[in-house]
Amino acid sequence: MLVVKKFGGSSVADKERILNVAKRCAEDFQKGNEVVVVLSAMGKTTDGLISQALEFTPTPKKREMDMLLATGEQVSVAMMAIALGSMGIPAISLNAFQVAMHTTSEYSNARFKRIDTERIHHELDAGKIVIVTGFQGINKYDDLTTLGRGGSDTTAVALAAALHADACEIYTDVEGVYTADPRIVPNARKLKEITYDEMLELATLGAKVLHNRSVEMAKKYGVQLVVRSSLNTAEGTVVKEETKVERMLVSGVASDKNTARIAIIGVKDEPGVAFRIFQLLAKANISVDIILQSIGRNGTKDISFTVAKTDLHDALKVLEENNARIGAEKVEADENVAKVSVVGAGMQTNAGVASDMFEALYNVGVNIRMIATSDIRITVLINEADVDKAVKAVHDKFMPDNAMFS
Amino acid sequence: MLVVKKFGGSSVADKERILNVAKRCAEDFQKGNEVVVVLSAMGKTTDGLISQALEFTPTPKKREMDMLLATGEQVSVAMMAIALGSMGIPAISLNAFQVAMHTTSEYSNARFKRIDTERIHHELDAGKIVIVTGFQGINKYDDLTTLGRGGSDTTAVALAAALHADACEIYTDVEGVYTADPRIVPNARKLKEITYDEMLELATLGAKVLHNRSVEMAKKYGVQLVVRSSLNTAEGTVVKEETKVERMLVSGVASDKNTARIAIIGVKDEPGVAFRIFQLLAKANISVDIILQSIGRNGTKDISFTVAKTDLHDALKVLEENNARIGAEKVEADENVAKVSVVGAGMQTNAGVASDMFEALYNVGVNIRMIATSDIRITVLINEADVDKAVKAVHDKFMPDNAMFS
Repeated sequence: MLVVKKFGGSSVADKERILNVAKRCAEDFQKGNEVVVVLSAMGKTTDGLISQALEFTPTPKKREMDMLLATGEQVSVAMMAIALGSMGIPAISLNAFQVAMHTTSEYSNARFKRIDTERIHHELDAGKIVIVTGFQGINKYDDLTTLGRGGSDTTAVALAAALHADACEIYTDVEGVYTADPRIVPNARKLKEITYDEMLELATLGAKVLHNRSVEMAKKYGVQLVVRSSLNTAEGTVVKEETKVERMLVSGVASDKNTARIAIIGVKDEPGVAFRIFQLLAKANISVDIILQSIGRNGTKDISFTVAKTDLHDALKVLEENNARIGAEKVEADENVAKVSVVGAGMQTNAGVASDMFEALYNVGVNIRMIATSDIRITVLINEADVDKAVKAVHDKFMPDNAMFS
Repeated sequence: MLVVKKFGGSSVADKERILNVAKRCAEDFQKGNEVVVVLSAMGKTTDGLISQALEFTPTPKKREMDMLLATGEQVSVAMMAIALGSMGIPAISLNAFQVAMHTTSEYSNARFKRIDTERIHHELDAGKIVIVTGFQGINKYDDLTTLGRGGSDTTAVALAAALHADACEIYTDVEGVYTADPRIVPNARKLKEITYDEMLELATLGAKVLHNRSVEMAKKYGVQLVVRSSLNTAEGTVVKEETKVERMLVSGVASDKNTARIAIIGVKDEPGVAFRIFQLLAKANISVDIILQSIGRNGTKDISFTVAKTDLHDALKVLEENNARIGAEKVEADENVAKVSVVGAGMQTNAGVASDMFEALYNVGVNIRMIATSDIRITVLINEADVDKAVKAVHDKFMPDNAMFS
């Protein structure tokens, strides 16, 4: 059996944790499995390098940042190979050049195009554990690229797909995917299984367990993932196309505080206004989430939408600088908002979920400011102060004790 | 003019020093020169990585150590490119893969075989300062190798040779090559020029200004070097085939405390004994320096020689384990010794240097325990406690004030 195992930065933060990971990999290897390990940079290494670079300039060249940051994972994989070697386990570390992990050209946000498997297979055939740098690749110029935050998950999935691995295990500091954040909802439960689509909605909505792009890639190539803890041997959550268990109405409740609401008041009620606004924002690389447009009145209308809190400043600047073209009476912003969502593949065939959710929120006095839905998700925008109360109320509504949870 | 400039770890140890180096490189670039910069790892980075690795095992795999250590220079070059970018100077960093610096296969002690120049020329043609990782290369397996301590000097010389550079400047924390260590001999003077051979003898003997292999390579490919300070604009010392100035009798006095004496007492006075001893040591990768063999007496003789102090333990172990083949009565070791040498291309044609040196040592009461000579060098082994006194006395003897010194 060929297994790809990915460990994040906190799992390899120091000597003891590296030895712990080495032991887990050695166990798998000694059972006769072929083991490929993907690692992130140790602990806060990446953040440290970034802040050092920012001391020179707030806008370092992205090409050079990738050159800089790629060293972090190279340190991790070499240390892990040395740790395994100290235990008598044959192991070899490989970086993006050595594997030949080809990506697109965009620095700091590259995507995999093709992964060569020859070197990895050669080393596996030679009886070694192969340890690969996560998060990075090389582009057509032979320059190092990085995949963006959480990119090591994507590396693991891409390798599992390219190597036709039998399993792809994502080790993290939680035991799996939960029905809600256990820090907010103490009786949140670990899911045995979840579909790619559900996981995607949860990842987007701030569940932070898996990097979004890694789930998209797992779905595309049919790579079955297991999310589990690097600290214990609990079973974890399987992410796959179809869950075997009966479809749950709701598989999770997620919240996201990195959101802000912008209201553009009193623009002309004529075609093209919304298009102009969102084109300007898109050009500035600002993603817009929930959009609400009021019904026209006296020849004007209001358009409100949400952006990431971290994009708010830039968004307001763009809108202000271009108000000649937009023609708004005024622009209002509200940072004290948050999103709460329920996600579940089962809700596609059940109309009652939305009203149940709204009822739960009404019962605890939470005001709903905007609503957005997809096939398998309902999201509401509420006041940030209400988030914990809202998540608990919605979780209690949809998550009675039952056998579907592990 | 194409200039290769090499800066060591202490020259790029922190933000201020990186900016200082960036400024110097920018000045050269703005004069219209093509500039290639070679950097070591920042400050004590390499030592830090080594000690982290040694926490796992005292004998980490060399292949993985090279993978680990190579990150140090990659951090330096990326930081330098970011620093130059912050000053508005176009710059690009390149690692061993990107340049394609091909070396032999031996990890931790590789030698250059071939350096591709296409990528560097391409970036120079595009009007950029090119910043290259020192100390490292790639071997035929596509694995990272390192060149051993001080290898960045060799990288600079190899690049200067491959690029047919017009100048190769080695920046360090001293102003050039001195007639003796200024910390021992306060009136030591900076040399304007020195030949490759003299520099080689001085480097071997602990002058620590230039890495030995870099001087060998400079000599082989006729690369003229300048050793100068990264902290000021003083002229430095030129290292070349023939010095223009009249040949100095003695160009420098060097000392080396990393030496220990081993005496093998009472081996049979028959052919092959010395061969067996030095073959055993060579197999264990232990370099032997000064060798002295006593005249045979009663069918036995004594063989004494020096090794690096750091090799003494291993050397004694090898000798003990193989005494059945050597047949010595006993083996003695003395760590409290040191070498003092005078080096000068002029002494080839002047027989009086040795006796002048011995006289100087006699006058200050220093006992000579062993003697070794080459065409341009005389080395004596003395008690370690006498080193400073000996260096001063020899320096005073050979270095009167004269116009040949800058």
